[in-house]
Amino acid sequence: MDIIAEGVKNVTNPLHEEDILVFKLRKEGVKVPSINVGDPAVYFKTPKYIVDAYIEALKQNKTSYTSFLGVPELREAIVNRYKRIYNIDFTEDDVLVTQGVSEALMLLNGALIDKGDSAIFFKPYYPAYLSYFSLFRGTPAYCNYDEENGWNVDTDQLEKRLKEESKGKKSKYMIITNPNNPTGTVLSEKVLKRIVELAKDYGIFLISDEIYDEIIFNNAKFTSISTLAKGIPHLIFNGASKVYDSTGFRIGYAIFPESDKTSQEVKLKMRDISSMRLCPNTPAQYAFAEALNNVKEHEKEVKSMASEIQDRANFATSIINKSEYMHAVEPNGAFYILPKLNMEKLTIKDDREFIHDLLVEEHVQTARGSAFGMPDHLRIVALAPRDTLGEALGKIENLCKRHSK
Amino acid sequence: MDIIAEGVKNVTNPLHEEDILVFKLRKEGVKVPSINVGDPAVYFKTPKYIVDAYIEALKQNKTSYTSFLGVPELREAIVNRYKRIYNIDFTEDDVLVTQGVSEALMLLNGALIDKGDSAIFFKPYYPAYLSYFSLFRGTPAYCNYDEENGWNVDTDQLEKRLKEESKGKKSKYMIITNPNNPTGTVLSEKVLKRIVELAKDYGIFLISDEIYDEIIFNNAKFTSISTLAKGIPHLIFNGASKVYDSTGFRIGYAIFPESDKTSQEVKLKMRDISSMRLCPNTPAQYAFAEALNNVKEHEKEVKSMASEIQDRANFATSIINKSEYMHAVEPNGAFYILPKLNMEKLTIKDDREFIHDLLVEEHVQTARGSAFGMPDHLRIVALAPRDTLGEALGKIENLCKRHSK
Repeated sequence: MDIIAEGVKNVTNPLHEEDILVFKLRKEGVKVPSINVGDPAVYFKTPKYIVDAYIEALKQNKTSYTSFLGVPELREAIVNRYKRIYNIDFTEDDVLVTQGVSEALMLLNGALIDKGDSAIFFKPYYPAYLSYFSLFRGTPAYCNYDEENGWNVDTDQLEKRLKEESKGKKSKYMIITNPNNPTGTVLSEKVLKRIVELAKDYGIFLISDEIYDEIIFNNAKFTSISTLAKGIPHLIFNGASKVYDSTGFRIGYAIFPESDKTSQEVKLKMRDISSMRLCPNTPAQYAFAEALNNVKEHEKEVKSMASEIQDRANFATSIINKSEYMHAVEPNGAFYILPKLNMEKLTIKDDREFIHDLLVEEHVQTARGSAFGMPDHLRIVALAPRDTLGEALGKIENLCKRHSK
Repeated sequence: MDIIAEGVKNVTNPLHEEDILVFKLRKEGVKVPSINVGDPAVYFKTPKYIVDAYIEALKQNKTSYTSFLGVPELREAIVNRYKRIYNIDFTEDDVLVTQGVSEALMLLNGALIDKGDSAIFFKPYYPAYLSYFSLFRGTPAYCNYDEENGWNVDTDQLEKRLKEESKGKKSKYMIITNPNNPTGTVLSEKVLKRIVELAKDYGIFLISDEIYDEIIFNNAKFTSISTLAKGIPHLIFNGASKVYDSTGFRIGYAIFPESDKTSQEVKLKMRDISSMRLCPNTPAQYAFAEALNNVKEHEKEVKSMASEIQDRANFATSIINKSEYMHAVEPNGAFYILPKLNMEKLTIKDDREFIHDLLVEEHVQTARGSAFGMPDHLRIVALAPRDTLGEALGKIENLCKRHSK
């Protein structure tokens, strides 16, 4: 008997495939610019008012377990945030604080997925969606964000898929990411309205991961699904990591703004499972409550960060689009760019070989599109300063030239 | 179609059943002494040198993601701890830092358990062992800690079970808790040696949860399974929560001291799954590294705490054993006592009814033995000061008298 569970042999995080090689290179003293991890706190210091609140919580000895739901102060701050920004009403009872959105994904799939159950993912997807879904032996169904249409959701394709499913076994949920990782796209209100309509018509539970909801630029307009999905079963993922530049806190949350039976059942079962792990980090919960409550400081910080990211993302996109070897849709949210490689001009076999060669020959680490379900693409993280981004993109260009047909 | 997964409908944390009622009582202003949660940080301030290190990490802006394995500084400190205390050798590569032992349990069962797979649990068990195992659809097998024999493992029964299994499908692992939750027992070296022998003879993966390994009293001697299981596939769970009095940090770890194929396969798959959630809380990892490295401060703190717990546990046990309604084996580690209720003298139906009535009539919250697989028992947490413990136990006595036959 093999000790590893048969059902998880292929479950992994494809973004970490190259890590061992990177560790090795760095140990040898090689500088490897990191343009592959979506971690704003590497390049933008976590705002001082948040760190100060964290220190204050520690000074007040907030180091014991909390309720598995999260401390009331934080849940109240989350309720207030949604009322303030989106004018959505729900109560603290509809908030579950989690150890990042990652844990929320574990709780979601743990609560909903039996072996062989289906859920709808849009390609390119955030890899952990698939990983946690596969951990519970789900069988994915795919639709697409459409590159030709600025990476917006192909709603016709979605309708076709839902119609087909309605004749047999239906998917347990569908999940969108807005703003998107790995494309940096902010979905249009028109597309979102159509998604909500389809969720209603076909009775599919809707999930929107909105963790980048205040990192919006190039005059884009972000719409939270909750403002459109009144009366429609859904949940929203969000957290401290990106907008509050606090990745290492590991504090995320799920909100369930609707009181329908499905939303509430999902909430209660996710809660049940969360209760096994006692609670998220305690002082970080208090720090995040202050991060949310101090609106004035926050707005100053997030505006400054988003404006800087806009500059870096536009700079990187313009370099990419000058190359004959790749082309990218301009992002307008988050901090990702997903250029498509012009494989016809390259002697490199695929994107996996590309990122491997890039690492070995040019010492630049980036992520392969196929890890997101989108082969022949690269995910570039536009958080590093212009000079680092420029240098890394220059090295990508060098690699392409060296391996061009 | 029901949205909740069929396989997890009954998966829950039985320790939280009464929480809603407790929230309600507390909201009404009723004082409910907490003798039901194993949280030392409620009654013993987290040592100042650890909190200071946490604050220092924040001041140094340690707020971005870390490696999913945990920061090298912490893994090195863990290696050094085991060398120093137990003279066991392994490397940083054999350490996986987790979000508490709870997460380590999720990773373990995620890595090993397919639907219907078996694992061996000893009754009374820590409930989350079963909850996480059930989350992955395992079918538990049970052996016993023997109350008549000071809650030591019944190794004859274990051998019988392993012999039986060897004819058919074998369990994926067996897990012991030493010192024990919920009994406060430190397992004897003789029993541990026999367990290791059986693990070897029957080729079953051995897990020892040793999170209370320095909270030892009444002259007991603790033996880490790793000092006995040389060459035998096993893993150890431990963490910051109990011995370092830092429950709210949510930092635990798994170590894999052996280089055999099974141990290493388990390690790699648990790693794989852990990589999906990026990392545990970053500044807390640095704080825990300092907690481990500052041996002088730590020994002072843990000795003082263990001595105080000894006093409280012995005080509570002596009160319990003066009652005609219950009887407890004296604990010598951790901070739990598991008295057996004398149900023959009570008109109360079972332990579930007992803890409910206790809460409603006397406003004392404690945990029912059946949540640990041991009906007709209560789990008392001996962390509160003597007066709180005395008052709570007095109220338990009142309840018994009021409902006596």
